[in-house]
Amino acid sequence: MSEPVAVGIDIGGTKLAGSAVTADGRMLNRRVRESPKVDADAIIEAVGDLAQELGSDGLPVGVGIAGIVSPDGVMRYGPNLPVGEVPIGPRLAERLSAPVVVRNDADVALYGEYRAGAGRGHDDLVMLTLGTGVGGALLVGGRIVGGTSGFAGELGHMVIVDGGRHCACGNLGCLEAYASGSAMGERARDLLTRRATDSRLRDLPDGELQGRHVTDAAVEGDAFAQEVLADAGAWLGVGIANLVNALDPSLVLVGGGASVRPAPWLLPAASRSMRDRVMGAAYRTLPDVVLAGLGEHAGLIGAALLAAASGGRG
Amino acid sequence: MSEPVAVGIDIGGTKLAGSAVTADGRMLNRRVRESPKVDADAIIEAVGDLAQELGSDGLPVGVGIAGIVSPDGVMRYGPNLPVGEVPIGPRLAERLSAPVVVRNDADVALYGEYRAGAGRGHDDLVMLTLGTGVGGALLVGGRIVGGTSGFAGELGHMVIVDGGRHCACGNLGCLEAYASGSAMGERARDLLTRRATDSRLRDLPDGELQGRHVTDAAVEGDAFAQEVLADAGAWLGVGIANLVNALDPSLVLVGGGASVRPAPWLLPAASRSMRDRVMGAAYRTLPDVVLAGLGEHAGLIGAALLAAASGGRG
Repeated sequence: MSEPVAVGIDIGGTKLAGSAVTADGRMLNRRVRESPKVDADAIIEAVGDLAQELGSDGLPVGVGIAGIVSPDGVMRYGPNLPVGEVPIGPRLAERLSAPVVVRNDADVALYGEYRAGAGRGHDDLVMLTLGTGVGGALLVGGRIVGGTSGFAGELGHMVIVDGGRHCACGNLGCLEAYASGSAMGERARDLLTRRATDSRLRDLPDGELQGRHVTDAAVEGDAFAQEVLADAGAWLGVGIANLVNALDPSLVLVGGGASVRPAPWLLPAASRSMRDRVMGAAYRTLPDVVLAGLGEHAGLIGAALLAAASGGRG
Repeated sequence: MSEPVAVGIDIGGTKLAGSAVTADGRMLNRRVRESPKVDADAIIEAVGDLAQELGSDGLPVGVGIAGIVSPDGVMRYGPNLPVGEVPIGPRLAERLSAPVVVRNDADVALYGEYRAGAGRGHDDLVMLTLGTGVGGALLVGGRIVGGTSGFAGELGHMVIVDGGRHCACGNLGCLEAYASGSAMGERARDLLTRRATDSRLRDLPDGELQGRHVTDAAVEGDAFAQEVLADAGAWLGVGIANLVNALDPSLVLVGGGASVRPAPWLLPAASRSMRDRVMGAAYRTLPDVVLAGLGEHAGLIGAALLAAASGGRG
């Protein structure tokens, strides 16, 4: 089990990370470097160079990228890579003479969790990723749901309170406006102006309070901060309930930077709120809501395993 | 194309309907009879009798039933058939010596639309069914989403306004409380107590106003009634937007008794509301929202075609 089955590469907003990966999801030679953001050619060249350095040599290559990827492996739109369309799949396959699979970063992260992380053994999975925003991905019958054009999995923009809080996307009432790291910070700032509390969050200068400060305070025992995290978790549970009603997964994964340390307050509240809302809860086994297991490596590992599984066929 | 490929049977709350069905979804010998509701044995026997009368004779048999059906073909819970568990799949397969597929009625209806109705050619489909409540089903990559335990597709209980209108399920703010036929009637009753209007709906005795009266009035040109239907459509669009964000289907079907005649007011409003809310609408082609095409026969036809396609393997 120490032979590589594929190379995985994660194209983030600021860095490229890659590794050859074994069949059981171990990384053999992980390397990280800066992402060139100048143009599509530079990105494709850097990814190709990295794949070769990692010993791709004909192995399938899987690429995860933050953006919309169409089924033919072309990145159509990338919020962190404003360079227009990037035909990374076809161009990389040509250069490497190898099968190449390109998918959205959330999709490959979920695939990594499914094959080698917290979702192992679960063919129907929902994953929500909490950071500045809320992302997500879906696995149905052991297959990642890409949708017609690669736009599936925009779970953060599910409306849970029509007419509710402003979301960064311009709409009102999206899950992201209630359960993202940013929302945790905003909620704390808002409550502090309206409520008497001796929370240590009061000590921060006006306007500096962010989600991570809420988490820091919660970890140190601040009851107010813990309440803010539990509130975000309860909202998260509304979104999870909607997804459980729609897809009936056997497990729900929560990942992303704004999930790990808040988990002790976030996840129990999410699970309770989900249980209160799922249809027919008395007649069924509801899924557990647990932390994703592979952290920042999920995308790289998942991209490699997806490429290996599909032999580059998509 | 006039040879039957399977027999389809739709077990409703009050009647059984069945027919042998051709590969292109035509019914050859449809028959309808009363549903025996006494116990599981009587139901299974009646379905077996009907299948034999329709000439099943070793052909695959597909059964659609209003309820929760587990992957092994056992109905675990049926709101209209309070007889406990009904092991209809295994028992029918034994009696008929034929492959038998049993699925939820909404699932087989969507499969019928996919193979022989308004959804033909679309491998990623969302269907919402408007009646007393709101039901639904999902098709991902050409496969009906059943979920871990057969509970997938409870789209009517998606929360779109947390803390909002009371739903029959006991929760607050479910889509069903805004877009079902019942909700249309309730909304009209509520608005009439609060607004000056010369709507003909005022002429009905107190408490008699139902969704179908709203539709009747709308068809006859009543502006107030048309507004009530458009309002339900706008809410329906919120639910559709959530599903488009999650699943990126190429088409959205709306079916059920409370959809056909209200469609001229319901569907344009739903489509507008969906377009206002889907993430990245500027970067993508959004699905059309159209009426389902097979009406009350969708379930029977879909059950047969699903049984034929899967050879009874589920």
